[in-house]
Amino acid sequence: MKTLETIDIHRSHGSSLQSSLAMQLKMMIQRGELRAGERMPSSRELAATLRVSRNTVIAAYDVLIGEGYLESELRSGVYVGRAAQAFQLQRSVRGAPRKTPGLEGAGPHLQFRAPLPFRPSQPDVRLFPLQIWNRHRGRVLKQNPNLLHYQSIFSSGFDKLRQNIAAYLRDSRGVRCDWREIVITSGSQQALFLLGHLLLQPGSRVYMEDPGYLGARLAFRQAGAEVLPAPVDQEGIVLPGPELKSLSFIYVTPSRQFPLGICMSLERRLLLLQTAVRLRTWIIEDDYDSEFRYSNPPLPSLQNLDKHRRVIYVGTFSKILFPSLRIGYVVLPPGLVDRFASLKHIAEDHGPLMDQATLAEFMESGAFDTHLRRCRRHYAERHESFLDAVSRYGLPLEFPIQDGGMNIAGLFPPTTDDAHASEQLRLHGFDVPPLSRYAITRSRSGLLFGFTSFEPKVIQRSLGKIAEVLEKSVARGGG
Amino acid sequence: MKTLETIDIHRSHGSSLQSSLAMQLKMMIQRGELRAGERMPSSRELAATLRVSRNTVIAAYDVLIGEGYLESELRSGVYVGRAAQAFQLQRSVRGAPRKTPGLEGAGPHLQFRAPLPFRPSQPDVRLFPLQIWNRHRGRVLKQNPNLLHYQSIFSSGFDKLRQNIAAYLRDSRGVRCDWREIVITSGSQQALFLLGHLLLQPGSRVYMEDPGYLGARLAFRQAGAEVLPAPVDQEGIVLPGPELKSLSFIYVTPSRQFPLGICMSLERRLLLLQTAVRLRTWIIEDDYDSEFRYSNPPLPSLQNLDKHRRVIYVGTFSKILFPSLRIGYVVLPPGLVDRFASLKHIAEDHGPLMDQATLAEFMESGAFDTHLRRCRRHYAERHESFLDAVSRYGLPLEFPIQDGGMNIAGLFPPTTDDAHASEQLRLHGFDVPPLSRYAITRSRSGLLFGFTSFEPKVIQRSLGKIAEVLEKSVARGGG
Repeated sequence: MKTLETIDIHRSHGSSLQSSLAMQLKMMIQRGELRAGERMPSSRELAATLRVSRNTVIAAYDVLIGEGYLESELRSGVYVGRAAQAFQLQRSVRGAPRKTPGLEGAGPHLQFRAPLPFRPSQPDVRLFPLQIWNRHRGRVLKQNPNLLHYQSIFSSGFDKLRQNIAAYLRDSRGVRCDWREIVITSGSQQALFLLGHLLLQPGSRVYMEDPGYLGARLAFRQAGAEVLPAPVDQEGIVLPGPELKSLSFIYVTPSRQFPLGICMSLERRLLLLQTAVRLRTWIIEDDYDSEFRYSNPPLPSLQNLDKHRRVIYVGTFSKILFPSLRIGYVVLPPGLVDRFASLKHIAEDHGPLMDQATLAEFMESGAFDTHLRRCRRHYAERHESFLDAVSRYGLPLEFPIQDGGMNIAGLFPPTTDDAHASEQLRLHGFDVPPLSRYAITRSRSGLLFGFTSFEPKVIQRSLGKIAEVLEKSVARGGG
Repeated sequence: MKTLETIDIHRSHGSSLQSSLAMQLKMMIQRGELRAGERMPSSRELAATLRVSRNTVIAAYDVLIGEGYLESELRSGVYVGRAAQAFQLQRSVRGAPRKTPGLEGAGPHLQFRAPLPFRPSQPDVRLFPLQIWNRHRGRVLKQNPNLLHYQSIFSSGFDKLRQNIAAYLRDSRGVRCDWREIVITSGSQQALFLLGHLLLQPGSRVYMEDPGYLGARLAFRQAGAEVLPAPVDQEGIVLPGPELKSLSFIYVTPSRQFPLGICMSLERRLLLLQTAVRLRTWIIEDDYDSEFRYSNPPLPSLQNLDKHRRVIYVGTFSKILFPSLRIGYVVLPPGLVDRFASLKHIAEDHGPLMDQATLAEFMESGAFDTHLRRCRRHYAERHESFLDAVSRYGLPLEFPIQDGGMNIAGLFPPTTDDAHASEQLRLHGFDVPPLSRYAITRSRSGLLFGFTSFEPKVIQRSLGKIAEVLEKSVARGGG
């Protein structure tokens, strides 16, 4: 284990401490400096050795476990995985004629996986009407054999899909736009990445909710921006003070603040829009799961209130249909449409059109609305089931916001070590990230539970077990 | 027409002169300063007015014709399109409650199109075994219902597909790599864009074939790089002289130089690799259509000769399967794998997995090889048919390189205005770009013909017509 002390981690351009650490551990495994089966130090030990936070180590371990470099054994710790051995073996015969690469290293990382309870923001893909989708796909292909060809005119996305999205957003979210202001992207992540690329340069400043969405923060930092953390109070993002003179944009999740769940008040929304006009800055509104409300009707989007077209609206179908579909979209103010479209063209040209054309049909046929209603019904039931179980099992957490979405944030008393609690849960087969993982500088101590992908009986059973684990770990590790 | 003189075009960060011009014309159409049905000046007139090259104007017109803003009338010129009217109409009612956006502006730009003869680099999608593909897709979905879920471990692509690609590249192209060094991208364009993003910054210098591939040049310029044009002789790219001390990378198409078709000699390949080692620079090898050779077996890839792992190998399935699939890949040297993978994760996370899993099955079943052989057979016949027709109709072009691929470059006498010839052909319904469109600073005068997407009888008929048009236009406009 002594080699681990020599690790030199640093935040290089576009990579975080945790990915730097993960990368170095990976290389040590590849070079055989860490051998298959070897026990890794606990996250607490390694964090102390390297003088980084435990969250950093835990996140790096998570990545390597996902890739098969490390393996986590129930209750006994983390080990260098068997996949590592295959990799070392293969390296040693480099240059010599090799066997079929398809046969080496086959292992658990070749499998598609279902999320563990309670991974946030995961729809239940078993509810998805795959047969109906496939029927639409077949019809679309039959009617449009040219769909297989390159389509130079669709680099912003298939027009009919853009029109259907415009109608849907207008009716369900009050988004006011022309369909030509919509660009289809590969999930919302590509939209955020390209927006970062378009609007930021090294030294640019972005004002963003803290805690907030990791994917957005990574994309903005990757573009070289400084991310200024904005506190979040019970009305939503706290607006920048008068000392902040120049910002490239403000990133917000007004419908349901990620991860805390707060719905931004109308007053705060209006102030935010005024601020954007005053600072001549853009607002990115990430409306990631506003489709799911179970009691109150949702407020319309921030974009709806925006008379000056400062709002860039980002959305996705990953959370309504299925995540591996990877169709997202961005609604751009007139001043940005052409520049964004031109960047999209260079970055990817058009995305896969068969799925876009199928989705356009799926929306037009009404199957989309039916599916959405079905999901809402099931998710509402799971939401209730979750809250029931929480009170039945007496979890040491408070759930102050209970109005829907796909996730519920549970709060510990302020001094509890949420990363430790989350790690304990991981060792028991649960995927419940600590709120501190989403922190830029500050966070509440707590856990984020996604409930939508799990049936009520799984929710009940899992929360029972989680209550047990937390009772021990919070008593021992936190507080 | 007077308003056109006020156009101020300039090369802004990340946008070319032609896209700047296209954008401004578009805005004038949107604002109603150019009315539907109005005749546009000829490319020659507008180029003279704005003091830019004719190619710039022609390219901008092409973009706007593709988007429906302009329409091209046979023999009579270019007009502001009817779609423009719909757009103006819609703008005027902004703010008022609008009709279903899905019903507005429906027109030709909603359709999927087949390429016109002889658009370069287009496979014949009618040869694609869609039923077999769909059968594999169905089976994959049945066996892997979890495939619909988000898969955090597959942001570099589905492992089984990466393994099959590694085997395929080793057997067919002599590419030596570990499958973990392969990252799946959205076509080769995303690979080039992300490589630009990773390796370049404002002021970086890239050495690239001139004439060369436009999509690559746009991606590198977008990243802020200066593109240094490299001459191409009969052995391939002419290497940089000793005065060139620092380069971020060298971009080449060694198997078949795009667009001229030259296969880089073995000697030049070895010199190129030595140069890369000496300059400590990377080489991007874009192996865009090496699958298609009809007489001689192909040379193995440049990557095969590379003992120092300086070569980044880029490929795509768009040209073998079908373009709207958008699955490409990049094979990275060990020193870049993790950094590229981490950028890909931020830029998009994983791409659509259903197609990736289907393709993995399609390759494993042998259907891929069968399809490739079938395409080769048909394309060889079309290649021959094309050369037959060329000599039968006596085109005023020479075709010095006739060893395969998907395109053939035809050369005019040096003083011929190839842009004019191409424009005349466009007015007659042909899509045959001038070689000068691919020039950075220099070019041969000529036209680029793609023959793979057209049946022999279409090739014959079209070349007969093209011979007629060229006889007139080259006699009048060129020489």
